[in-house]
Amino acid sequence: MKPYSELSRQELLELKVQLKAQYKEYQKRKLTLNMARGKPGQDQLNLSMGMMDVLNSDSDLSCEDGTDCRNYGVLDGIEECKDLMADMMEVRPENVIIFGNSSLNVMFDTVARSMTHGVMGSTPWARLDKVKFLCPVPGYDRHFAITEYFGIEMINVPMLPTGPDMDMVESLVASDPAIKGIWCVPKYSNPQGISYSDETVRRFARLKPAAVDFRIYWDNAYTIHHLYDHDQDHLIEILAECKRAGNPDLAYKFASTSKISFPGSGISALAASENNLTDVRAQMKVQTIGHDKVNQLRHVRFFGDIHGMVEHMRKHADILRPKFEAVQNTLERELGGLGIGSWTNPKGGYFVSFDAMDGCAREIVSRCKKAGLIMTGAGATYPYGKDPHDSNIRIAPSFPALSDLQLAMEVFTCVVKLVSVDKLLADMDTPA
Amino acid sequence: MKPYSELSRQELLELKVQLKAQYKEYQKRKLTLNMARGKPGQDQLNLSMGMMDVLNSDSDLSCEDGTDCRNYGVLDGIEECKDLMADMMEVRPENVIIFGNSSLNVMFDTVARSMTHGVMGSTPWARLDKVKFLCPVPGYDRHFAITEYFGIEMINVPMLPTGPDMDMVESLVASDPAIKGIWCVPKYSNPQGISYSDETVRRFARLKPAAVDFRIYWDNAYTIHHLYDHDQDHLIEILAECKRAGNPDLAYKFASTSKISFPGSGISALAASENNLTDVRAQMKVQTIGHDKVNQLRHVRFFGDIHGMVEHMRKHADILRPKFEAVQNTLERELGGLGIGSWTNPKGGYFVSFDAMDGCAREIVSRCKKAGLIMTGAGATYPYGKDPHDSNIRIAPSFPALSDLQLAMEVFTCVVKLVSVDKLLADMDTPA
Repeated sequence: MKPYSELSRQELLELKVQLKAQYKEYQKRKLTLNMARGKPGQDQLNLSMGMMDVLNSDSDLSCEDGTDCRNYGVLDGIEECKDLMADMMEVRPENVIIFGNSSLNVMFDTVARSMTHGVMGSTPWARLDKVKFLCPVPGYDRHFAITEYFGIEMINVPMLPTGPDMDMVESLVASDPAIKGIWCVPKYSNPQGISYSDETVRRFARLKPAAVDFRIYWDNAYTIHHLYDHDQDHLIEILAECKRAGNPDLAYKFASTSKISFPGSGISALAASENNLTDVRAQMKVQTIGHDKVNQLRHVRFFGDIHGMVEHMRKHADILRPKFEAVQNTLERELGGLGIGSWTNPKGGYFVSFDAMDGCAREIVSRCKKAGLIMTGAGATYPYGKDPHDSNIRIAPSFPALSDLQLAMEVFTCVVKLVSVDKLLADMDTPA
Repeated sequence: MKPYSELSRQELLELKVQLKAQYKEYQKRKLTLNMARGKPGQDQLNLSMGMMDVLNSDSDLSCEDGTDCRNYGVLDGIEECKDLMADMMEVRPENVIIFGNSSLNVMFDTVARSMTHGVMGSTPWARLDKVKFLCPVPGYDRHFAITEYFGIEMINVPMLPTGPDMDMVESLVASDPAIKGIWCVPKYSNPQGISYSDETVRRFARLKPAAVDFRIYWDNAYTIHHLYDHDQDHLIEILAECKRAGNPDLAYKFASTSKISFPGSGISALAASENNLTDVRAQMKVQTIGHDKVNQLRHVRFFGDIHGMVEHMRKHADILRPKFEAVQNTLERELGGLGIGSWTNPKGGYFVSFDAMDGCAREIVSRCKKAGLIMTGAGATYPYGKDPHDSNIRIAPSFPALSDLQLAMEVFTCVVKLVSVDKLLADMDTPA
């Protein structure tokens, strides 16, 4: 197939007629398809139903150290749960605090605490004229929503195939003391599925920030969320690398079991240096008596240990892999060689990132919607919802059943072609 | 028995010898007794073990409206859980937001949000020179810890048998725009077990605060936590009363199931006007995707409805009642008529409040500790840990087994007598 850019006006017009007919056929089918969010599908949820059986009325709900998990107490998590999460997060148990059901909540609270109380004794951000965060783009909309909520100025940093543009990160962080943080999804990034290269992680650990209260917000959301057993990305562990580089307090590492057990009913954790954790506990002990220990125990009893967790993730992968492959196959078959879009091919995580021709993303998402297919809103992957090229679209293959997904991708690629043809025709009509 | 104040120096000295011998006997027994916190006892925890059985791997984890509780979604709580908590909180379901496992966390977040974002559009408190809270005393240490953490100045307001001194509350609130809130435990208050009178609640609802962002922090922690089935305190519902008084946005009402199901693994809720809830949701949607819906469902399936919950609370009462009665009986038997202490006799809640002679509380708690009995720290019931009279001690009868509690109260009353005798002797030695 010839690239669309090489087609004549007449050829484009003929193609348009054909695509429009196809689009109308889809519309007639009154589809309701949703690829908007990284929600696990029902078959994935079924994998964790055993979790409802590990504790029953005959169970001893005590920890190994004798703590009764049913009562108040234990501020920062039961020991066996710290062990499990430490193995998952590749850190020591003593560097882990267990929280509630949402790592997003932990990140929000981390920024909120910095606003009112600073970081390890620094000036509270609320008292500063200006606070800025670096935002690798495209990125995760809920990260950007937190910094926007607190009035923090967000600076776009382009993602490269190796991770964020580190030349830019190093230079900005070193020169501007108003820059207090950077949002990172370092492994199978949201939405591109990029894992940061070894060099990128090493450069992160060696940052020389102008602000003493600068922190790397390392949201390792997809740490064991591989699609392939033997073809996995491996990330250098950031806290260890920071320690080796002499910057032990530089990073907060976040994780949760949301896409391992049940989203919304899992456990979350923060890993950081002892100095950082002391700072966090000073708030935490005022904020709560402790998080849900019965649920912590439930997770420990269900998974047993990290091997059990990894085996469980293989079952998730078996369900997700065909979905990701269906996305890739349809994109390649329908759009390969046309020059109207590019996309990523991640080995894990929850997303595929699609880049349309400049100025086409909003229109594509809008026309998908009119054909019954909900995609993540165009612009969502950028701070303030503003994609400067209006080109990035996040594809979330996990939620629809495989057959629906197949159909959804056919609708999507049809719409991409239709909008691209319109765009090329419009460009021809625009005087140079 | 004669009041100690009428005893001669010689009589006091003889009494001291006797009490010291008794105290040493207790010390020899190497006791480990704890009445420090309002923790349910083990037999109370056993009441909720059935909660571990209501959901199993064969259960349908869907809500009545079809929502799959295992997946992401539903920001502010599933409908049937709002129904249950609304009945418990005596409000409409649409005025309820369900949160995580801790109402303390909800209160903390409410103050934190006011610091960074104000209340319904008011100036963020972090930008004000001075923010103050009224604190009825004695009160709950964890409330005071929140306001202290945020640098909010706390003003003591004396508790009367009818609730806080409303003359003082009305006058302070009306005259000082820096006063932004008041901490209230309106029913079976912590630590006195006082329930606010009808007039007190009516006056609360009719406050005319100088600050538009003043709110009543109504922590109804013990709403259905009665000791007696037919001898219950009844409180006028604050949100309805505020609405009737034309001040619908004046109060936040907090509650949780912490002392109903398992502490730390329960659910919490906030009830407030639609305006207030809209304000809260604006933060909440950035902070989390949603709280633990499976646990919400577990509570609904276990209790069924408010009647089930009330029946469950009768079982708690059956366990707690003998403990509260043992406290009362020992206090009356050992200290009645001696004029060295007074105490409350609540019909519900988790505490009995004891007032020693001025200047004796710290010494009593310290000597109890040396005999193996841990009481709540003296001063804990006052802001900044400073009891101006050094007289108040909180007694928490719930955690020890009945036999231990009996012994603990004997140790306590022995220590009260000993310290009081010392105090009276010291006063005799002090030149007028």
